[in-house]
Amino acid sequence: MKQQLQHKVQQLVEKNWFSHGILALILINAILLGLETSAALMQDFGTVILLADNLLLAVFVLELLLRIFAYRLHFFKDPWSLFDFAVVGIALMPATGQFSVLRALRVLRVLRVLSIVPSMRRVISALLGSLPGLGSIAMVLLLIYYVFAVIATKLFGAAFPEWFGSIGASFYTLFQVMTLESWSMGISRPVMEQFPFAWAFFVPFILIATFTMLNLF
Amino acid sequence: MKQQLQHKVQQLVEKNWFSHGILALILINAILLGLETSAALMQDFGTVILLADNLLLAVFVLELLLRIFAYRLHFFKDPWSLFDFAVVGIALMPATGQFSVLRALRVLRVLRVLSIVPSMRRVISALLGSLPGLGSIAMVLLLIYYVFAVIATKLFGAAFPEWFGSIGASFYTLFQVMTLESWSMGISRPVMEQFPFAWAFFVPFILIATFTMLNLF
Amino acid sequence: MKQQLQHKVQQLVEKNWFSHGILALILINAILLGLETSAALMQDFGTVILLADNLLLAVFVLELLLRIFAYRLHFFKDPWSLFDFAVVGIALMPATGQFSVLRALRVLRVLRVLSIVPSMRRVISALLGSLPGLGSIAMVLLLIYYVFAVIATKLFGAAFPEWFGSIGASFYTLFQVMTLESWSMGISRPVMEQFPFAWAFFVPFILIATFTMLNLF
Amino acid sequence: MKQQLQHKVQQLVEKNWFSHGILALILINAILLGLETSAALMQDFGTVILLADNLLLAVFVLELLLRIFAYRLHFFKDPWSLFDFAVVGIALMPATGQFSVLRALRVLRVLRVLSIVPSMRRVISALLGSLPGLGSIAMVLLLIYYVFAVIATKLFGAAFPEWFGSIGASFYTLFQVMTLESWSMGISRPVMEQFPFAWAFFVPFILIATFTMLNLF
Repeated sequence: MKQQLQHKVQQLVEKNWFSHGILALILINAILLGLETSAALMQDFGTVILLADNLLLAVFVLELLLRIFAYRLHFFKDPWSLFDFAVVGIALMPATGQFSVLRALRVLRVLRVLSIVPSMRRVISALLGSLPGLGSIAMVLLLIYYVFAVIATKLFGAAFPEWFGSIGASFYTLFQVMTLESWSMGISRPVMEQFPFAWAFFVPFILIATFTMLNLF
Repeated sequence: MKQQLQHKVQQLVEKNWFSHGILALILINAILLGLETSAALMQDFGTVILLADNLLLAVFVLELLLRIFAYRLHFFKDPWSLFDFAVVGIALMPATGQFSVLRALRVLRVLRVLSIVPSMRRVISALLGSLPGLGSIAMVLLLIYYVFAVIATKLFGAAFPEWFGSIGASFYTLFQVMTLESWSMGISRPVMEQFPFAWAFFVPFILIATFTMLNLF
Repeated sequence: MKQQLQHKVQQLVEKNWFSHGILALILINAILLGLETSAALMQDFGTVILLADNLLLAVFVLELLLRIFAYRLHFFKDPWSLFDFAVVGIALMPATGQFSVLRALRVLRVLRVLSIVPSMRRVISALLGSLPGLGSIAMVLLLIYYVFAVIATKLFGAAFPEWFGSIGASFYTLFQVMTLESWSMGISRPVMEQFPFAWAFFVPFILIATFTMLNLF
Repeated sequence: MKQQLQHKVQQLVEKNWFSHGILALILINAILLGLETSAALMQDFGTVILLADNLLLAVFVLELLLRIFAYRLHFFKDPWSLFDFAVVGIALMPATGQFSVLRALRVLRVLRVLSIVPSMRRVISALLGSLPGLGSIAMVLLLIYYVFAVIATKLFGAAFPEWFGSIGASFYTLFQVMTLESWSMGISRPVMEQFPFAWAFFVPFILIATFTMLNLF
């Protein structure tokens, strides 16, 4: 009896019109979430938009419950299902006080399009599929970063606390240097005014980091 | 009788000297349009230059009419012909008041070189031919942009209205960040002064956007 | 008799020790030309350095004359020989008054290393060999540049004469924009303050120019 | 007797648990060296951290001595062993006075992870393996740099001593220009205010340098 129901629910959620309907609702939700950023619109239609937003959220929760009921534990073994579960779950968490940033993350729900549209799913799979091969080289890059960050913090930390005051600050600044953004006029030249040989730190770092980075691709 | 004329016109516009002549006129027109940007030259020879410009425009319109007469509906099925039609058509539109920007777009006429010279036509065809394969990945990139733009507008919009005041402003700023132009010294560091964890927004965005972008090519 | 001499000179200039000797002299000359940039050194040893420089120049002229005597017209058919001829010739031109920039170009002589060392010659040949295939696409890029430069000059020239005051200025600024250097914070955002839709000019230009550029490689 | 001992030591240092243990100690050391950059932590636990650091250094020295004892001269023929020897050796050098920078370089010890973990070793070998093929083209790039640096120093050195005051300064500035960092707004435009034709120096340099650079990869 219960198994029969489970089977029927499974048939339902696998119907084409079902996933197309969910996709349509996600796109409507995407537009609503975009409209929510307009202060003018929120003043006039805020109540309606938020109501529709919550209604859609309820539909998404219901859909997830149906799929969990249909697939049981198998639901939690599929990474795409877990992804859907996570991005919908964010919207259910309390977003008050220090967690108010979660309210902004509700838009992540829109990314469910990636898991519904097959051609996008393939793109994401291909992109993620190229990551494991990058593991070793990413570890090498991280190690190089760590070594340069420690050196920078020790050498320049006291004189330039904003850029190299801590390991974290140095990591961020070195990432900026690797992207070549203002590395010379913004960072290296001011540092060289106090440490004339700072170029012997920045130029090799750029050569090593960009050369290793290019081999990631 | 009329069909005979149509046939003769078709033979005419397919003659080599005909398209070579048009090409020569386009190049002359290109030079004239360049000269028009010089205020000094326009003061002395403005009347002559504008007269020549209008004369050439008349020739181009005549050429298009001949080709439309020769090919009839087939003319409008060829994308290159439509391109010629559009860039010549711009010059015929009224360019007064709020449409004065159209006057500047008249130079698009010069792009007809692309549709006349066979080797350039091949380059454009090859470039455009590589676009459809990029469809899915471009949609993924757009979706990622949208999600990040909504988050940025919600989080930073109130504090930095110039950069993240609306979805549109956020889109533009995120495009700038993706090109790595002043992303840190210009955008991210000022934002981090108010939101210390803003790096957790910008660094992942750069990694995701550039990684996806690189896979476009 | 004269033919015999020509033959002997030819044997001489093709000797290994001959070209190795010339290479050594070029490298010594390179160092001397580097030393000439130091004001302190020039004050103390200026006379000696300039004397040695002129002496080496005399040797290079003599070597060229020998090779011209040996190969006659064939000398002027070999692009590498013409290159040697040109970079040595620069040093013989009067470098006074408005041509004083030629004095700085004398260092181009050092590039003769490229034509003497076989492995470098191969690198240059390979680099130049990849250029002809780029012809069509480079023409397309130039055409796109021209069209955008004319539009920019017409639209923004009056308001931003330093960046878009003339076709030449626009070309330079668009080249800067294509390299993504300060395109947004430095150029596009200031322009957008007067022309709110300027992004519709810069963003497409960047997309088109970088996409076409990437297909050059 | 002594040979027997040598053999046993060799067996010891080749044991899996031995290198895994060393790896663990290096990672602990890496964390300690990171903690040393925090002034707050050093005030409270400085003595403990430095003690642990020195203890670990002693272990690394002992390990190296064992390996030297085991392999004798063969130790010094293996580049990875020499690398280990060098990065540990740095920590033993006096780091006082003008050599205080060596204290910061002690973190290079962490790079021993690269020589212990086989998958990282492969990455480094692959990266280094691609270098020799770059020899000729790197020499060409260096030559181009030298020529442009001498020209820049002669032409712009007097007017812009900070950027082009010496060959060294010009080399650094040209490297910055090649990375496209602030090349126009920061360097080229200010120079063009005094030398209107400076673009004829910078634009060709960028085209040549980036084109040659791209062929490095």
